Amino acid sequence: MSPEEFRRWGKQVVDWIADYRAGIESFPVRSRVAPGEVRAKLPERPPERGEGFDAVLRDLDEILLPGVTHWQHPGFFAYFPSNATGPSILGDLLSSGLGVQGMVWATSPACTELETVVLDWLVELLGLPPHFRTDAAGGGVIQDSASSAALVACLAALQRTGEDVARRGITRRHTLYVSAHTHSSLERAARLAGIGADNVRVVDTDPDTLGMDAGHLDELIAADLASGAVPTMVCATIGTTSTTAIDPVREIGEVCRERGVWLHVDAAYAGVAAVCPELRWINDGVAEFADSYCTNPHKWLLTNFDCSALWLADRAPMIEALSILPEYLRNAASESGEVIDYRDWQVPLGRRFRSLKLWSVLRWYGAEGLREHIRGTVALAQEFAGWVRDDPDFALLEPHPLALVCFWPRYPDLPVEEANARTHRVLDALNDSGDLFLTHTKIDGRTLLRLAVGSPATERRHVEAAWDQIRRAV
Amino acid sequence: MSPEEFRRWGKQVVDWIADYRAGIESFPVRSRVAPGEVRAKLPERPPERGEGFDAVLRDLDEILLPGVTHWQHPGFFAYFPSNATGPSILGDLLSSGLGVQGMVWATSPACTELETVVLDWLVELLGLPPHFRTDAAGGGVIQDSASSAALVACLAALQRTGEDVARRGITRRHTLYVSAHTHSSLERAARLAGIGADNVRVVDTDPDTLGMDAGHLDELIAADLASGAVPTMVCATIGTTSTTAIDPVREIGEVCRERGVWLHVDAAYAGVAAVCPELRWINDGVAEFADSYCTNPHKWLLTNFDCSALWLADRAPMIEALSILPEYLRNAASESGEVIDYRDWQVPLGRRFRSLKLWSVLRWYGAEGLREHIRGTVALAQEFAGWVRDDPDFALLEPHPLALVCFWPRYPDLPVEEANARTHRVLDALNDSGDLFLTHTKIDGRTLLRLAVGSPATERRHVEAAWDQIRRAV
Repeated sequence: MSPEEFRRWGKQVVDWIADYRAGIESFPVRSRVAPGEVRAKLPERPPERGEGFDAVLRDLDEILLPGVTHWQHPGFFAYFPSNATGPSILGDLLSSGLGVQGMVWATSPACTELETVVLDWLVELLGLPPHFRTDAAGGGVIQDSASSAALVACLAALQRTGEDVARRGITRRHTLYVSAHTHSSLERAARLAGIGADNVRVVDTDPDTLGMDAGHLDELIAADLASGAVPTMVCATIGTTSTTAIDPVREIGEVCRERGVWLHVDAAYAGVAAVCPELRWINDGVAEFADSYCTNPHKWLLTNFDCSALWLADRAPMIEALSILPEYLRNAASESGEVIDYRDWQVPLGRRFRSLKLWSVLRWYGAEGLREHIRGTVALAQEFAGWVRDDPDFALLEPHPLALVCFWPRYPDLPVEEANARTHRVLDALNDSGDLFLTHTKIDGRTLLRLAVGSPATERRHVEAAWDQIRRAV
Repeated sequence: MSPEEFRRWGKQVVDWIADYRAGIESFPVRSRVAPGEVRAKLPERPPERGEGFDAVLRDLDEILLPGVTHWQHPGFFAYFPSNATGPSILGDLLSSGLGVQGMVWATSPACTELETVVLDWLVELLGLPPHFRTDAAGGGVIQDSASSAALVACLAALQRTGEDVARRGITRRHTLYVSAHTHSSLERAARLAGIGADNVRVVDTDPDTLGMDAGHLDELIAADLASGAVPTMVCATIGTTSTTAIDPVREIGEVCRERGVWLHVDAAYAGVAAVCPELRWINDGVAEFADSYCTNPHKWLLTNFDCSALWLADRAPMIEALSILPEYLRNAASESGEVIDYRDWQVPLGRRFRSLKLWSVLRWYGAEGLREHIRGTVALAQEFAGWVRDDPDFALLEPHPLALVCFWPRYPDLPVEEANARTHRVLDALNDSGDLFLTHTKIDGRTLLRLAVGSPATERRHVEAAWDQIRRAV
């Protein structure tokens, strides 16, 4: 495809996306296809001859779109938001157009240096501690996801135990601490790193706040130490996936410091809320105690996937765990020690120019625009929570400080299992309507509906319509 | 940014990319900035107010471009190619525009089903065995990189040893087998998975072919077994990074089968060459012996990063190693067992609609176009190798069956260390010229220059000019 052909087709693709976004409310939010339905419409065999890009766009409309769940739809309240805004799409397009590799500084210096700058900007925007900046001992890096960030943190934590796991492998029993509400990626990190799921300890949570019980954490660590294990990492969560519960980072941090255990803070969803000074309390204790901290601009901060920000208080053990320098990557800049080679900060070797999209977002919206987005979505969620609270047919899970509201229809005459089944039928009916998409979670044996506000496309009228529909469905 | 604003700015970004590509030869291939130079030109602090996208494009031109190494330049002969063609950029743009998550089938069915289809197409296009197809016991998945693919293979291999590493962690000494020419990502996978670098055995290579010595592999496995270790995975490489050497997969596979060890085949660069039937010999033994196989369309097959294809002969141990199902991801489709949830096939949880770019490439070029690209770049490299061979001032590394040529200037009067230093000075002078970019490797203590042809922008005149400049530089 020549540059001129790209110019022509590129503008058609831009038009396609603009039209798609402008008309997104005409689609059912959740795809209605059955398993295998999309596949059955696609050719069994690859094309022998090339085709025009119009054929791709035609099949996108006719075959693929019915199989797409529209995450950017204003009625998408499921999971957590996955904001893919205009400036982020354009930043990502520039990354594709440049087509450079940023595995080491020397392979494209701007790719590395812009990443450092925007992550330092984000430290300031979120009120994170200055030692997370790369000009201190720490530093930030863009990961593909909070799962990979957790794995990198876990590898750094293993290295810091002094067992030299990178060289000798796992030779003792290492333990990792989570709560029942910690994201499953932490157990996954333990499996991947050779720690094993059996060595993941589940710390009790406070029945009211659903936050981790620091006292129980300390007991578990003590018991593991007594049995000869190496307590390696604790994960505290700021904004759990289930309900946005917030672990007491400060109390957990004190235990970690006392016991010499790495503290990873997973704020994948909620951390970006700290662009608003009035929400910075969620990060209490992070500055003093976090060894690593992760939050995802690709969820709620207007930047399209993948863009997960990971910071470390001390980057040395991570680099020790991950750095290998084969001859064909040797270069004067790396050997000078004056540059960052982000390949030593992540699982893969290759890397896109991902900072371009975050840079585009930060510049297009500015700090003001980011705060407005967070405040606006939190306000809508709080308004929705008020409606739920005032309705005797519903119960509301407290607290709900951010933009996720968990609630359930009261069925006072039904045993919990039957009430849960009925809640699931309500959920299915709502999602089948095509007007909105909610997901669920389970707390203390009870099925809860989750409504997460977060798309810049979602206006008050969409939340009102959702509430109206939910009330009619129960 | 409204859909209409996106339409306007999007077309400007498309124009920017088309102009960049049309004028790419006006840039020095390798960036000339010094460490910190780009960073120093960027503001210390994030913007408080939002700005127009024109400000982003202006700073891209003025601040970032001087710090970019132009991987899509026709004079880029370094590392391996990283093709970012028009249709792949547009497919990726569509992925950004849709902004969907494909972590499980239910979160966007088309995202999963198109991926399955295009990877099945690729099985046919590359002549890979039908048991790699998802409708058999195996299956293909797009990973971000061959490094992550190697890690996934390693985790599956660990699981298949019967030690239930996912649950119990690493409790015995596991060993992994590579050659000195295997990509460093394999040692990295061993570190990440808790096996440890010390348990990576380096198998001898044949001094002529640089391929792994299957007899020595068998000896090492036997010795490890005798010492109580668990031989877990062998990595055979088809097209090493250093010199595109090809390990004897069939002989290695026979050892692996006999010994019950997982065989991973890393064909990251070279595997895609098998779109040409006359090059399918490189995959000899894969059909019979490979437990996992990886090749990167994002290198030489016209698809922009990230798009690394991984296939497994049996997906079960991988899924056993990686699958965790939290409540908020439970859904009827997953529980029916009728669908694929690719989240269980990779390190991260979230995933982009990456198959769109591969689909766009396969349709735009067709099998014919892909073969033409591979044949054209191989022919240019072979022609270049001929010029080197015929020049008494140069020595050529044989064989060079693909599109990488390794060679060195003969300095018959210099000891090898001095000759190497001089070769490095030649390399620096060439790269400083801005006309071309080569990298180097080291074989048997000798520094070799690597010239990798692979960009669709590279024409015969660029290779001729490179040769002319190289001859003048020695």
